[in-house]
Amino acid sequence: MHIVRTHWKGVDLVSRMIRVNMQTREVMEETLPRDYGHLGGRGLTSMLAADELSPTCHPLGPNNKLIIAPGIVTGTRAPSSGRVSVGAKSPLTGGIKESNAGTPVSQQLARAGIRVLIIEGQADDGLWLLRVDGDGVQFANADELQGLGMYDAAERIFSEYGGDVGIMGIGPGGEALMSMAGVAFNDNENRPCRYSGRGGLGAVMGSKGLKALVVDDSDGSGVNIADEERFRQGTRDLSNALTSHDVTRPGGTLNSYGTAALINVLNEAGGLPTRNFSEGSFETADEISGETLADAIEERGGDGMVGHSCHPGCIIQCSNIWPRPDGTEHVSVLEYESDWALGANLGVDDLDEIAEMIRLCNDIGLDTIETGVTLGVAMEAGLADFGDGQRAIELIREIEAGTPTGRILGQGAEVTGQVFGVTRVPTVKGQGMPAYEPRAVKGMGITYATTPMGADHTAGYTIAPEILGVGGDLDPLDPENKGDLSRELQAVTAFLDSSGYCLFIAFAIMDMESGMEGMIESVNGVLGTDWTVDDVSRIGEEILAAERDFNREAGFTSAHDRLPEFMRYEDLPPHDEVFDVDERDLDSAAGR
Amino acid sequence: MHIVRTHWKGVDLVSRMIRVNMQTREVMEETLPRDYGHLGGRGLTSMLAADELSPTCHPLGPNNKLIIAPGIVTGTRAPSSGRVSVGAKSPLTGGIKESNAGTPVSQQLARAGIRVLIIEGQADDGLWLLRVDGDGVQFANADELQGLGMYDAAERIFSEYGGDVGIMGIGPGGEALMSMAGVAFNDNENRPCRYSGRGGLGAVMGSKGLKALVVDDSDGSGVNIADEERFRQGTRDLSNALTSHDVTRPGGTLNSYGTAALINVLNEAGGLPTRNFSEGSFETADEISGETLADAIEERGGDGMVGHSCHPGCIIQCSNIWPRPDGTEHVSVLEYESDWALGANLGVDDLDEIAEMIRLCNDIGLDTIETGVTLGVAMEAGLADFGDGQRAIELIREIEAGTPTGRILGQGAEVTGQVFGVTRVPTVKGQGMPAYEPRAVKGMGITYATTPMGADHTAGYTIAPEILGVGGDLDPLDPENKGDLSRELQAVTAFLDSSGYCLFIAFAIMDMESGMEGMIESVNGVLGTDWTVDDVSRIGEEILAAERDFNREAGFTSAHDRLPEFMRYEDLPPHDEVFDVDERDLDSAAGR
Repeated sequence: MHIVRTHWKGVDLVSRMIRVNMQTREVMEETLPRDYGHLGGRGLTSMLAADELSPTCHPLGPNNKLIIAPGIVTGTRAPSSGRVSVGAKSPLTGGIKESNAGTPVSQQLARAGIRVLIIEGQADDGLWLLRVDGDGVQFANADELQGLGMYDAAERIFSEYGGDVGIMGIGPGGEALMSMAGVAFNDNENRPCRYSGRGGLGAVMGSKGLKALVVDDSDGSGVNIADEERFRQGTRDLSNALTSHDVTRPGGTLNSYGTAALINVLNEAGGLPTRNFSEGSFETADEISGETLADAIEERGGDGMVGHSCHPGCIIQCSNIWPRPDGTEHVSVLEYESDWALGANLGVDDLDEIAEMIRLCNDIGLDTIETGVTLGVAMEAGLADFGDGQRAIELIREIEAGTPTGRILGQGAEVTGQVFGVTRVPTVKGQGMPAYEPRAVKGMGITYATTPMGADHTAGYTIAPEILGVGGDLDPLDPENKGDLSRELQAVTAFLDSSGYCLFIAFAIMDMESGMEGMIESVNGVLGTDWTVDDVSRIGEEILAAERDFNREAGFTSAHDRLPEFMRYEDLPPHDEVFDVDERDLDSAAGR
Repeated sequence: MHIVRTHWKGVDLVSRMIRVNMQTREVMEETLPRDYGHLGGRGLTSMLAADELSPTCHPLGPNNKLIIAPGIVTGTRAPSSGRVSVGAKSPLTGGIKESNAGTPVSQQLARAGIRVLIIEGQADDGLWLLRVDGDGVQFANADELQGLGMYDAAERIFSEYGGDVGIMGIGPGGEALMSMAGVAFNDNENRPCRYSGRGGLGAVMGSKGLKALVVDDSDGSGVNIADEERFRQGTRDLSNALTSHDVTRPGGTLNSYGTAALINVLNEAGGLPTRNFSEGSFETADEISGETLADAIEERGGDGMVGHSCHPGCIIQCSNIWPRPDGTEHVSVLEYESDWALGANLGVDDLDEIAEMIRLCNDIGLDTIETGVTLGVAMEAGLADFGDGQRAIELIREIEAGTPTGRILGQGAEVTGQVFGVTRVPTVKGQGMPAYEPRAVKGMGITYATTPMGADHTAGYTIAPEILGVGGDLDPLDPENKGDLSRELQAVTAFLDSSGYCLFIAFAIMDMESGMEGMIESVNGVLGTDWTVDDVSRIGEEILAAERDFNREAGFTSAHDRLPEFMRYEDLPPHDEVFDVDERDLDSAAGR
């Protein structure tokens, strides 16, 4: 095994930025640009992408970079804060991209003293693995891992590097440069099932010739906390909010049913996209609901569980492990988005079939949302019948095998629609829409249309006030006056995605002032800043502005801040609504 | 056969605009908007597309329109003026598109009294044929033609409607909504081999449910000429220029060798893109040169010929008929662009293999340029070896069969590059580059980058002064001061594409003032206008401005007026040049 090792020379931990060139195998230890010292996660990946990338570079060419950054409080004792952001120019959207995952690897990176890791260039010989620890970076040839699924690859890597390291890696989908390939991280028990899934970041990693990153924090010196007392007070207030809010508390909605609790809620609202966004409710939605999921897990017993956590220190614990009928572990995790994308969106109502599709996606290294949206378009094109889960599984295996059909599907919904001449393609900026039908939940349509990320529910979750009664109570069908709501949520989210906190703390901090203040104080404690809630919006807006600038230079205009044409003229049952939000509201939500 | 017939009600022939709705089968006879009375061809298709289409509509959805217009002087005795323009929003580029063909059908349309024909909506039952004559429009069911190649389809249509009608139609590629599908017209002897090839207009026609348009001018009243004397004087001066210029005269370059005369010229200039734009010269270029072509045709005898004309009344007569080794007809026409795209660009140097590929493209209804550029990208991806013409033929047959691989290729070079993860993809605005390597002929690169049409050599043919010494004498490798040249040529071309004249008259009118004046006077004679050479540029600029406005609203920015990134960092042999034109020159050529 060809190994090259570089040792850190000693940049201050609070601003250590590592740059690795895959072609020259140079490793540079640098100091974060001074203006970015207060950022983490998405704030860092987006600011650095905007500064360092040519917006017109080819996403899979030598001039794109893969940027990895844990959040500001990640690696500390702050609750539910184990998030890591991955950024690049996206091969799926052609714009800037950040996608974050909940995983112990986020905390290991932070504790190893890595504020940000930038992967540049392209290896011109074979496939590589990078091992990072508190002392330096090591290149190791990874040709023997070529073509391996993430489960096998993770097993081999843990067996070689020890079970206490963290892994970030790609499956065959990323190696094959597929635009629906995500970046996998391991969970608490070393399953490679936590994903920065969206936007094809796995293909960017593949284009670098990088199969996996291994993080060892055993020699790391941890995360610096500027004001311990302030940090302690803040985390205590935030923890109290999380443990008392019905959505986030132990035994609350997310903990008991997982995110799939949303299936029945959205179905009742007529906003559960069904059979490639042709209906807003699914007649057998309850078969795949969070309630049914939790019951089945209890009934089957064995290795299944709800209330599982994706990283240490989470209060919410919304993950789960799905068992086979005999109780043995099948797959973790059956999230709302995956459940919907591979379920209702395909007309499939069998949780075991959905679980098998998720397991395949995890193994091949694919975004479950893009996979489901793509299969919905493929079904519309006649490649399978809606409801035929077994055929859907076969199509995912074609992606794995890289057959011509698999290569088409692997490029996502937009390319699949083009190749098969389908006009009903639910994408924005080339990215498939998540599990909220914009004709039934108008504010979410504004977020899909206007976030710099392409259709993305996490970018400004208007579902909270429109459907869940959190942070307000709005009629989801009303198209009026939701541009500002989306814009404000997009800014707060950009901040949260930088903090390292899980987006799900939003339920508690939107409803409880003490929770919001606690979150901010915990960040102030780490950084030594004196931010208020106004700074949250301000900093979020700064990050969004950089992202929008990047996209503008990449060639995006207001024409790209729109939903697909068919949603403007095709009525969606059961409400028989079109997407009728005024374009001025879209432009204002996009900061135009 | 289900037939619906509508009769004209009597709009003045000089401004008759026909609108056909494929869904409702309504036919409307309207008067051209007053401002457009002086336009024809591209001027009409682009102005009407800009006025009537939502720039963000789906190109294959119900809101796109297919717009067909003969040129201003088309249908008169003006020499070399048998051009018809087809326009729409392009499924290949996502922008406005005009592509014109030389065919007697252009003249028949004009003489049947059709200034412009607009096809709207989408048939929701089966496939249709439209028959247009001097008296009205007739719908006929065309399900029996479904899936037929253009050669068989044309034979059946001529057999049913008589050999004197004209045909515009699509092959299986257009029916399958492939973005490389063109629109076919018949030539002088009823071969369906003259193409409005570029930009996927065949897919737009297919999306309408329209297999063919049949034009019968026997009841038509011809083209109105406002000032016969002026028209006669103008055409005489133009004819004199054409018959005396070495490029366009009988027995001159184009007449003797066809457009393939350019193979050796560009090869010597190092500007003949070879093996997917990885080199600028092809070691066996002479095997596929115009000289070799002409020699082989003479040697084989039989049905082969050079100096063939694509429509009645052409002085230049640059077309040809390629014979098999036994002298029987193989295919017409072996143009420079097709010869290069399916030859040098694939490393193929066998004229019979190239001819067979052209024949297949004609039959399936594919743009030969996009097909060749796509196969070049496919070869780069490893689907075939460069030089393997037999495998290239097989891949075209996959497009015909609509296999998954065929469907990928059928979407053109950009999608093929994405699906197979290729970063060296020679496209602009999604359209494959023609036969001039922009790193070796810098002005042509400016035209590729900045025309609203996507990479298109005909849009502003800087090759004239850069390579051929026509209209000037510039160093092709010099990147300086060519923005204005490209912009001026783009404007003059937009006018010529509206006049109905073949672009090849440009050689004579750029070099000979009397030719330019004759061209303008012939147009003045038809229209009763009093235009000068300044009006040519002004009107051309107006057309370009409408096209650019459309593209801007469709989401195009200066970022789309650029060549692919690899041409900026990869040296091209033999000159070892990159494309180093200043971006300000690109912006100025694009009218920014």
